[in-house]
Amino acid sequence: MNKFSQRSRLIQPFHVMRLLGEARNLEAQGKDIIHMEVGEPDFATPAPIVAAGIKALNESKTKYTPALGLPELREAISGYYQARYGLDIAPQRIVITPGASGALQLLMALLVEPGDEVLMADPGYPCNRNIIHLYGGTPVPVVSENENYPLNADEINKKWSNGVTCGVIVTTPSNPTGTVLDRQALTGIQSVVAARKGFLVVDEIYQGLVYDALDMTALELGSDVYVVNSFSKYFGMTGWRVGWLVAPEHAIPALDKLAQNLFLATATPSQYAAIAAFTEQTHDILEQRRERFQARRDFLLPALEGLGFRFPHTPKGAFYLYGDCSKLTEDSGVLATQLLGGVGVAVTPGKDFSVSNPSSFMRFAYTTSRERLAEGVDRMIRAGI
Amino acid sequence: MNKFSQRSRLIQPFHVMRLLGEARNLEAQGKDIIHMEVGEPDFATPAPIVAAGIKALNESKTKYTPALGLPELREAISGYYQARYGLDIAPQRIVITPGASGALQLLMALLVEPGDEVLMADPGYPCNRNIIHLYGGTPVPVVSENENYPLNADEINKKWSNGVTCGVIVTTPSNPTGTVLDRQALTGIQSVVAARKGFLVVDEIYQGLVYDALDMTALELGSDVYVVNSFSKYFGMTGWRVGWLVAPEHAIPALDKLAQNLFLATATPSQYAAIAAFTEQTHDILEQRRERFQARRDFLLPALEGLGFRFPHTPKGAFYLYGDCSKLTEDSGVLATQLLGGVGVAVTPGKDFSVSNPSSFMRFAYTTSRERLAEGVDRMIRAGI
Repeated sequence: MNKFSQRSRLIQPFHVMRLLGEARNLEAQGKDIIHMEVGEPDFATPAPIVAAGIKALNESKTKYTPALGLPELREAISGYYQARYGLDIAPQRIVITPGASGALQLLMALLVEPGDEVLMADPGYPCNRNIIHLYGGTPVPVVSENENYPLNADEINKKWSNGVTCGVIVTTPSNPTGTVLDRQALTGIQSVVAARKGFLVVDEIYQGLVYDALDMTALELGSDVYVVNSFSKYFGMTGWRVGWLVAPEHAIPALDKLAQNLFLATATPSQYAAIAAFTEQTHDILEQRRERFQARRDFLLPALEGLGFRFPHTPKGAFYLYGDCSKLTEDSGVLATQLLGGVGVAVTPGKDFSVSNPSSFMRFAYTTSRERLAEGVDRMIRAGI
Repeated sequence: MNKFSQRSRLIQPFHVMRLLGEARNLEAQGKDIIHMEVGEPDFATPAPIVAAGIKALNESKTKYTPALGLPELREAISGYYQARYGLDIAPQRIVITPGASGALQLLMALLVEPGDEVLMADPGYPCNRNIIHLYGGTPVPVVSENENYPLNADEINKKWSNGVTCGVIVTTPSNPTGTVLDRQALTGIQSVVAARKGFLVVDEIYQGLVYDALDMTALELGSDVYVVNSFSKYFGMTGWRVGWLVAPEHAIPALDKLAQNLFLATATPSQYAAIAAFTEQTHDILEQRRERFQARRDFLLPALEGLGFRFPHTPKGAFYLYGDCSKLTEDSGVLATQLLGGVGVAVTPGKDFSVSNPSSFMRFAYTTSRERLAEGVDRMIRAGI
């Protein structure tokens, strides 16, 4: 039996997977489960994207693309930045990756040396921590003193340790809190990072899914920011595994080498399909979905408040509500298990997102219909919450 | 400007990419290029596989699968081992990955500690070296004293350094040499590795593409061997990016965690399509293609020998010929450049595959038609080789 690496021991499994396994067992027994744990939109991939994928297959477009991605797709993303954000981003700076996971992996392989520390918000998406472990770095959680959770420049400056900290990963809109950082907050962080000569990676995987907030990109801060994005969430292409990153031009040759070795390339049919993500027809479908997400949020948030969950602010993005349940339980993990077993409601406990305060919060994903969310709330009332 | 990591500096780009870029420029100028540099079959993905991909898209099968892969596909691969190799491999031991690259990445993340040495054949596929660098390990080339190139147990034993060497990666059939290791060779290597308490990874990405050799899998050696495979080469699915690994059962939970964080999952449409790789109809198509590869090899090998290339043995697998060109040039890199610019023949110089002897060899891929191969040979004669 071979010894497994330290990095593999440092990486925690997602606790929600155990819960999801239990949910599936219950469903197999005929129980009805309300899924509020899944970080995947319930909507199907928009028809024009699927049609483009089928067309590519019919035309036998199934060979390797260049490691940096299909030139047409890199052009299309460049055009999207121009059309939606008024920014001129050269296609040469855009790298197509197998999802945002692939993008983050490439960037951390490029930027993190073993022993380096990388700052990131706590609570946050667990993969971002784990990818730092993968390369022998240490993820350092930054807990905001402000209950509205935004990572801010002062906190980053305080946590920065010269010669050890190498950079910051910021996620906006955030998973699990739904927080959207505004231009001022991002600029402040950028200044600190620049003064410390570190890197700034902004994870924009939920870009486009914002409600009453400015839809923006950190690329407007200048060409030294690394941006991660994906077709999974806003564009509804989770299972296709296609995302992208934008990097300063001088980083592209090194990223090309890494991509050749880590992936060879992103799946070709998925890349052809993704080109259709930027048509007007797809845009209209996506904007309708965004409105439906917003309506769900506007229903679910007050309903959960009525049950005793507390939200320090109204989340302006993504499709999550991260509720403080400390008035309801000592341990959100225990409550999540009770809700699933008792009334068939699946939610994600805070320990998947936070090392500093794992027990006081739960994440609710509004990736199921308004009717199912209402049924979930009714069941929680029945459970005596 | 951020400092890039040492690992990214240790990873060499593929030299053939520069050559390929030049070839494309020449083609854009209207020149006709014979491609003998490409490690990708010229055949399209078999129609039943494409049809299964289209069916999956029509049925909106585009959500995330479990990180370990689609249960149906893991079952289908298990069935393939039973039907083709008479082996009982539990689906639970099979992990679906984004190509063999993804599989190797998972295994090295699991098994290699920074500072560890991993033994592998020189010449060999450059990504296998580079993925060791990725995790802070050191790839150690094992050069066979036997001109037939097989990695053998004695050489591995000699190179093994206790407390530093952690394992061996064996590729069979080999890229670039086409060498196929037989059962005895594999068993010998397994014994040394077991005695040294290391790991044995067998890369079988060219499995199925063998000529006058036994088509086998290292899985028959027992459940402690790690095997990497892919739908890319034999099954003709390069751009789909789907492969797999087989691991001892106790390694699966750790691999699951790593896959969740590195990939989330492999592309869903590609996984559904791959299920159709095991139908009888696909099998017949693939076997016909294998015969065509064999006929190409049987044409190209003596033709190249006639030009002065020397082959220590007749390669029994993959779709490559690795020829000693030391009678023709001092530097295979220079000869490759001359052939491309002079007569439009693209081949890969040895420096992409070997650190010990980069200048005396070139790799010819017979991934183009018999007619084009003949034209390539004629052009080389015209070039005065």
